[in-house]
Amino acid sequence: MRTVAVVGTGLIGTSAALALTGRGLTVHLEDADPDAARTAASLGAGTTEPPVEPVDLAIVAVPPALVGKVLADCQRRGLARHYTDVASVKAGPRGEVTGLGCDTVHYIGGHPMAGREQSGPLAARADLFEGRPWVLTPTPDTDTETLNAALELVALCGAMPVVMDAAAHDRAVALVSHAPQLLSSLVAARLEHADETAVRLSGQGVRDVTRIAASDPRMWLDILSANAAVVADVLDEVATDLGAAVSALRSLAAGDEAGRQAGVAGIEAVMRRGNQGQARIPGKHGAPPTRYETVTVAIGDQPGELGRLFGEVARAGVNIEDVAIDHAAGQRVGLVQLSVAPAAARQLEATLRAHGWDVRD
Amino acid sequence: MRTVAVVGTGLIGTSAALALTGRGLTVHLEDADPDAARTAASLGAGTTEPPVEPVDLAIVAVPPALVGKVLADCQRRGLARHYTDVASVKAGPRGEVTGLGCDTVHYIGGHPMAGREQSGPLAARADLFEGRPWVLTPTPDTDTETLNAALELVALCGAMPVVMDAAAHDRAVALVSHAPQLLSSLVAARLEHADETAVRLSGQGVRDVTRIAASDPRMWLDILSANAAVVADVLDEVATDLGAAVSALRSLAAGDEAGRQAGVAGIEAVMRRGNQGQARIPGKHGAPPTRYETVTVAIGDQPGELGRLFGEVARAGVNIEDVAIDHAAGQRVGLVQLSVAPAAARQLEATLRAHGWDVRD
Repeated sequence: MRTVAVVGTGLIGTSAALALTGRGLTVHLEDADPDAARTAASLGAGTTEPPVEPVDLAIVAVPPALVGKVLADCQRRGLARHYTDVASVKAGPRGEVTGLGCDTVHYIGGHPMAGREQSGPLAARADLFEGRPWVLTPTPDTDTETLNAALELVALCGAMPVVMDAAAHDRAVALVSHAPQLLSSLVAARLEHADETAVRLSGQGVRDVTRIAASDPRMWLDILSANAAVVADVLDEVATDLGAAVSALRSLAAGDEAGRQAGVAGIEAVMRRGNQGQARIPGKHGAPPTRYETVTVAIGDQPGELGRLFGEVARAGVNIEDVAIDHAAGQRVGLVQLSVAPAAARQLEATLRAHGWDVRD
Repeated sequence: MRTVAVVGTGLIGTSAALALTGRGLTVHLEDADPDAARTAASLGAGTTEPPVEPVDLAIVAVPPALVGKVLADCQRRGLARHYTDVASVKAGPRGEVTGLGCDTVHYIGGHPMAGREQSGPLAARADLFEGRPWVLTPTPDTDTETLNAALELVALCGAMPVVMDAAAHDRAVALVSHAPQLLSSLVAARLEHADETAVRLSGQGVRDVTRIAASDPRMWLDILSANAAVVADVLDEVATDLGAAVSALRSLAAGDEAGRQAGVAGIEAVMRRGNQGQARIPGKHGAPPTRYETVTVAIGDQPGELGRLFGEVARAGVNIEDVAIDHAAGQRVGLVQLSVAPAAARQLEATLRAHGWDVRD
């Protein structure tokens, strides 16, 4: 694969274009908004010049509701030898692609499972897809060459290909993305009119549960509209479980012994099922969660102490991959957590201890 | 305050004991399980010898359902001059304390808002409460001396006192802790029997939403049993919103224009309310989210670059309150975000720029 067209230079399209130009491919950029395409080009994502002959692969990177129409247009123009899209739902666009009479032999659906809170070309990053699942949904007649072109795209972006049926994909993202998004919003919505004192009691738990409730409603409307029936089915199942949990709580509140036992059993069941479901979720980026090791050092609060620590780590020749400081205002001691390569961790701890640092186990 | 008794040496009791012995107080430890008390003592949390005269404050650190009984027993023994507890619900224990005819003049309810996934004395940390809210719920006749003893305890543990009515506390924790816990479990429960391929598609969103679904069901049963009616009321409100969200999705799925518009309005409403509620949650440790300003510096990937940066900041006399690095593997440039006092931010940026650093706006 040498030449690619990216049709739609938002976050996803531009990120793919940046990854591909970074690997030496020629990328042609187009967008309904010429400014967006020019912005992407100025970021080094490719050229806004149209290709003079069909490119190897066209990536249709537009909202789910537009995939069919844009794909049909690209195929009419003979833009590419193979086509894919990156829409976050797959059955609806597939139906439109078929309904519009598109060539489904040289088309394969795609969905890279990556995103950011920001959108648009300026939020794009060449490494957006690294280590992330990239679902490919072949049509019944997608040919092998087209599948291989898509697999090459996924590999060039550093992502992990997962081949699925379009309907199974939509059910899967309803479970692991769309339904959790709406439930996060529902939990956060309860805080809209809560007493200020109540909100002050928020801890890390509710903060984590509601983090994605900060997402952009417009973007989610596009996604949820295209997968509405499937998400509604999942939420109906959640509603059934929620009703059972409320009944169990009411039994517990009633106070008699038989009710209490039924309530305990009901709540314990839902929490154990939650334990089981949570344990199945793979670590970050699908990678084993122990990619780096953490070296924890307690430091004081004076200016310079962090600097001295980082200087020490640098002199030891160790690269810090990430840093977290657990350090409340007014607190004397902060715990600095340095993420380093596993091979370097033990030696770094010994070096820091030898220089008088308070390394914690 | 010089002497304290901790009755119940689990995670919370032992952590408070460690904080207090660290500040030079004498702490007497007891537990229904003598091994747990001995473990706490071996960690340096105090002595298992009983006090020879009443201590200044007794901390009843037992599950909510046992607070009344244990407090009554402690008061019968004349263990302390003042009493508090640390149970995570307050109205139920208050009712039992009153019903058992306890002395409510020298008692004040308490709830430190801190915890860990692990339980028991071995999980205890002297700094568990630092910067965290610690709710105090006086009875109608709690005297000022008892309130002050509890405030001293909270200060010695580095926590932030919040005085509340017991019932308001229970409604607040239902909103910000108990209901989010059950909804996290309900989202995770849907993954229990999901296809392996579906679970592989999990991203950071569902990971955050379901993190606390890994919590111990037995511990949560104690908490939820003691606040069951209040949590059920909150979940009923969530269920109403959930029903509306499902209706909106079904309207979207129906496909006609009137339905589509109603569906868009319904989903947008719930997501905007989620935006509003999420925005009210204060930052980590209950601090206002805009307390520090962020100075962003782009650095290269070589060992030592972070160290040089921190050295520069230290020489400028500026204290770094927090650090985040946006720094993906294989990427040339990382963005270091330094949180500093607002008064220092502009001058630090100028100093760093003058020394050749790539400071980003």
